[in-house]
This record gives sequence, structure tokens and C-alpha cells, in this order.
Amino acid sequence: MSNQFNTVMVSAADMQLCFENVLIKIGFSKERAEQIATVFTNNSLDGVYTHGVNRFPRFIEYTQKGYVQKESVPSLKSKFGGIEQWDGNLGPGISNAIFATDQSMKLAAENGIGCVALSDTNHWMRGGAYGWQAAKAGYVFIGWTNTIANMPAWGATDTRLGNNPLVIAIPYNNDAIVLDMAMSQYSFGAMELSVMKKEKLSMYGGFDSDGNITDDPAAILASKRPLPVGYWKGAGLSLLLDILAAVLSGGLSTHEISKREVEYGLSQVFVAIDIKKLPQHSVIPKLIDNVITDYRKSVPQDAITLITYPGERVLHTRKRTQEKGIPVMEQVWNEILKL
Amino acid sequence: MSNQFNTVMVSAADMQLCFENVLIKIGFSKERAEQIATVFTNNSLDGVYTHGVNRFPRFIEYTQKGYVQKESVPSLKSKFGGIEQWDGNLGPGISNAIFATDQSMKLAAENGIGCVALSDTNHWMRGGAYGWQAAKAGYVFIGWTNTIANMPAWGATDTRLGNNPLVIAIPYNNDAIVLDMAMSQYSFGAMELSVMKKEKLSMYGGFDSDGNITDDPAAILASKRPLPVGYWKGAGLSLLLDILAAVLSGGLSTHEISKREVEYGLSQVFVAIDIKKLPQHSVIPKLIDNVITDYRKSVPQDAITLITYPGERVLHTRKRTQEKGIPVMEQVWNEILKL
Repeated sequence: MSNQFNTVMVSAADMQLCFENVLIKIGFSKERAEQIATVFTNNSLDGVYTHGVNRFPRFIEYTQKGYVQKESVPSLKSKFGGIEQWDGNLGPGISNAIFATDQSMKLAAENGIGCVALSDTNHWMRGGAYGWQAAKAGYVFIGWTNTIANMPAWGATDTRLGNNPLVIAIPYNNDAIVLDMAMSQYSFGAMELSVMKKEKLSMYGGFDSDGNITDDPAAILASKRPLPVGYWKGAGLSLLLDILAAVLSGGLSTHEISKREVEYGLSQVFVAIDIKKLPQHSVIPKLIDNVITDYRKSVPQDAITLITYPGERVLHTRKRTQEKGIPVMEQVWNEILKL
Repeated sequence: MSNQFNTVMVSAADMQLCFENVLIKIGFSKERAEQIATVFTNNSLDGVYTHGVNRFPRFIEYTQKGYVQKESVPSLKSKFGGIEQWDGNLGPGISNAIFATDQSMKLAAENGIGCVALSDTNHWMRGGAYGWQAAKAGYVFIGWTNTIANMPAWGATDTRLGNNPLVIAIPYNNDAIVLDMAMSQYSFGAMELSVMKKEKLSMYGGFDSDGNITDDPAAILASKRPLPVGYWKGAGLSLLLDILAAVLSGGLSTHEISKREVEYGLSQVFVAIDIKKLPQHSVIPKLIDNVITDYRKSVPQDAITLITYPGERVLHTRKRTQEKGIPVMEQVWNEILKL
């Protein structure tokens, strides 16, 4: 009998082709369809379903409603030395972010450090994708986006802050170390999934409607009070990331985005550093390896705990899904096949 | 009867003069003594006693033992566009950080964005001081330091990560919004104080020796398992900040610093952005004010909770201590008077 947890295994090639066909059908160019389909597929291969296959239908919906402008490309608003402001012209968040990451690397190659601030863009899906993009090209990357308000200030009950994911990446071992952290402890998607599975969260994840800290995802979804990472600290970091994104790009802040009927027209920052320009660049891989080697010597709290660096688990997931296919919720896949 | 909580009220002028005299007595130049005394006093005025007056004796001790080189100044190791590497030559962390912040602003004035990576420096005391320094000069600032290992990896029981404070600052309202966040939820100093006062922490702050999450500071001090901000997220951020600091500066990582008998020879990063170079710079104050105005509309969870932005409480503390003096633990002040 079918239920909401039934999954189908979809190969990356099939998923990519399916996405491309849908995108072309609704009017994307072949080239852009391929680019967007690749990122949605890669995010799914890496196990980030919430910003991969599960999110694809909403991307199509937002495009059809005109929030995402299919063929828009960014335009330069200003330039001074290593910093540039670009207008995303409401193009697809994925395409704009790939462009901005590339552009930040070009600036870094010229200036050592480059910063692209992007206004009027859209959801970049999984921020880590751009960390990998830059790090695999040999650059250090620091980037972040603002979002619609979805988290309260510390001590507050109403949502005025975004969860504003921050990405930091560095090349490592023919791949990369990539941190991709939203400022809320758990995403709403993750909490909804836990509710469906009748599971508690792994740690405290928010407050219930009485203001008690809880690991009950249903209580947090009801109160709309997810926990900021590090309590008051992550709430403060979220506020600063939003202000910086809006100030540097000349774009909208979370406060302004939240007045809109849906989340569109975001502000993002992309900073790249060209570490090949550092005189000691040849010993950098060894330096990082020494840190990771020491980190791996950590004493785990129990026999089942693995100590991993940010982005490491993704490599295992990617290997597994490449070999065995991507597990997709049947109901999601059926919805996509009807697009 | 005297006890460990007795405090004496010391005026900023008296504190500064006292610090200066001690510094000159142990061999600092008049100019450098004034600079260092000012920062220790200002940190105390702002209520950051752990990195102000309470820390002053240890700074003197480290200087007398030669970990801090009194008159060292940074020397340029490399330069490419907007990024420079400087060797701190084990000079006082405060002096080196003030220099590096100034230098990052000079680079930003030329390049829009500037990055100074500093190796072989010492504890900068309170990172927020450099955020204020840059923001009050009109710059956006992002900076961080590594530290000795004092926090376990997520899921581990031994300390391999530093708490690596991150500072982000932006000019606001003739002052600044300044986030100054260590990657551990509570500092060891704060937990020791709670133990002395027989108080629980305000939130969960670590694990006890059985691996249970707890708000009992004594249990966390015993287990040496402070909570990273955002659980696995802050642990990951700490790892990345350490790697970046060591890679960009060509200096030591937390792993290497932790082999030393005490914490010295740190790696730090100072990034400044010259927002006066942005074409919309004249409307930036209004943009930030709109964000803060919305943020202040947050509904507090109860009648006693104040919703404040990062750095805001400091302004109130500073006003109070400037008027009424700085409360100093009697035992600390007596120790300083004997130096």
C-alpha cells in the first residue's frame, strides 16, 4: 500500500533529463535549463533534498508566476577595486549565484580578494553549491544570503529575522571543506519531516508556545519559534548578515522582503580569496591536512559517533546516490512527472 | 567581612593610570603603555571584565615571561592587491590588532575591500574593540582569531577546537552595531563566575561527564565539554575559522598553538569594506535604521525581556560605568595594585 514515505529510486541522469525537459517546456533556453537542472540534481545527489528535488516544483511555480525571470542575467551597478554591485534582475537564483561566484573569483584573481554583492536575486537553493564551485576552482569562499523573516529575535515570539545561510569553503584533498549553515538550528523542512516520521529532533530545536525549550518539532512548528544557532548569538549573526547583504548590494533587507507575498528579490554577498597568490600556497594543502588529521584524533563520545568535517558526509552520500540512485518521495516524483 | 564578591568602584581615569604605570614599570614605552591601558580600560568600561581588568594580570605575566614581546611591531610578509600578510612578531595582541585593523581600512580605502592576515600575534583580548574601531571610522568589519583548543568537535569528548571569536561590525547611529561571538556558548570565565555565584547558566551550555546536556556550569567545567553555538554548526564554523586564519596568514593553527605551554602566537584575519565607496552610501544609515526599527517591533516573550541588537547593551553599560565607575572584584584590584 502506498504511503507518504514510499520512495522511488531515480538515477541522476533521469532526474536531470526530467528537470531539463520541464524547464524547456515552460520556456527556459536549452543552456539555462541544463544549468539549473544540473544544480537541482547535484543538490539531490548530495542528499540535500529540501533544496533539490523536493523544491523543484516550487521553483517552477515561482517562475510561472513571474517571481523568477527566466532569462534575466545580472547587470553591473557599480565597481570599486575589488568590490562590485550587481543587480540580479530577478533571474533564477541558481544562475545568478553561479555568475556571482565566478565574478568574485575573477575579482580575487585580480585583487587577491573579491566581493560581489548581488541585489534583486532569488533563492539560491543550496548555498553550499557555490562554496564547492569556488573551492574546487582553488579559491576560499565566504558567502551568504538573506531570506524572508522566519525566526524570532532572541527573546521574541514573532519572526523578524531570516535564517540567512552562511557558506564558508576552502579547497581540500581534491574536493573541499564546505560549511553551509542556516542561522536557525533546524529548517522548517527538517522539522516537518520529523513530524511526519513521528520523531523528536536530535537536540533542542526551538520553543513551544509556552516558551519552553523543546525537541518536539510539532510544538516548534506551532509556535513558529525555531531556535537560533547559539541562542542570542545566531540571532545577532542573522541580523548582521542581513544588514550587510542589503547594505553591500543596495538591495532589500529581510524586513522589506517579508512584506512581499512570497520570498523573492533577495540580497546576497559572494567573497572569494585567491589563495594561489599567497607566497606559501604550496604548503597550504599540508597545513589543512595537519588540522584535519588532528581533528580526526578526537575521542568520540560513543562507539557509533563519527567525527566528520563540514561537507565530509556529503561525499559519502554522493557516492551512494551516484551508484544506487537518488531516493525520492513517490508523491514528489509523481508531482514532478506531471509538470 | 570580605568575600570573593566584594567589589570596589574604580574610575576609568584611575584604572587607566594604574595600568599605564604598571606597563611602564615592566618596560613598555609610554606610547604603547597608553595604547594598551586604554583598551583594557575601555573593555572594562564596556562591562567585558574577562577581557579587561580581570585579564590584565595575566597579560603582565605573559609579557614578563616573554610570550608577549613588548615593543615588537608587525612586519609585512606579502602583498597582492587587497590582501596582505603580516607577521605580528609576538607583539602585544592589542597593539597588533589595532595596527591590522587600521591597515585593513587603508587597503579597503584603496581597493573597496581589504584583508590583513596576521600571524604570530597574541590574544587581542576583546575582539569587539576592533569592530568598534573600524565601524566608528566608517567601515564594515569582519574579523576573527584562532585560540588554543578549548572545545570538543561535535560528538567528541576531548578539546581539539578553539572557541575562535568572530566579530562583525557596521557603523550605526554615530556608534556601531557590533557582534562579538565566540564559538562556545559560554566562556570558561562566565561559567566559573556562575559556579562562584552558585547560579545555573541561563540556557544549556554544555555536556556533563555522562554526556547529558546541562545548564550546570560546574558539570561543564568538570567535563570540559562546553557547547558549541548551534551544536555541530558552531563546531564546524570554529574549524573553518581556524583553517582560514592559519591559511591566510601563513601562521599557526589551533592544533599547533595547543602544543605550546601557554596560548601565544595566534593567527587572525581582519577584513574591512569601505562602504563610502558604494554609490548608494548616503542612504545606508536610513536602510540600517529601517531594519533596526522593524527589529525593535519584535514582540517580547514577557514583560522583562528587552530586544536589543548586538552591541546595544554595551552602550548602556558604558554610560553607567563612565558615570559611576567600574565595579572591580576587590581581590583582582588588590592584585593589580601590587604589580
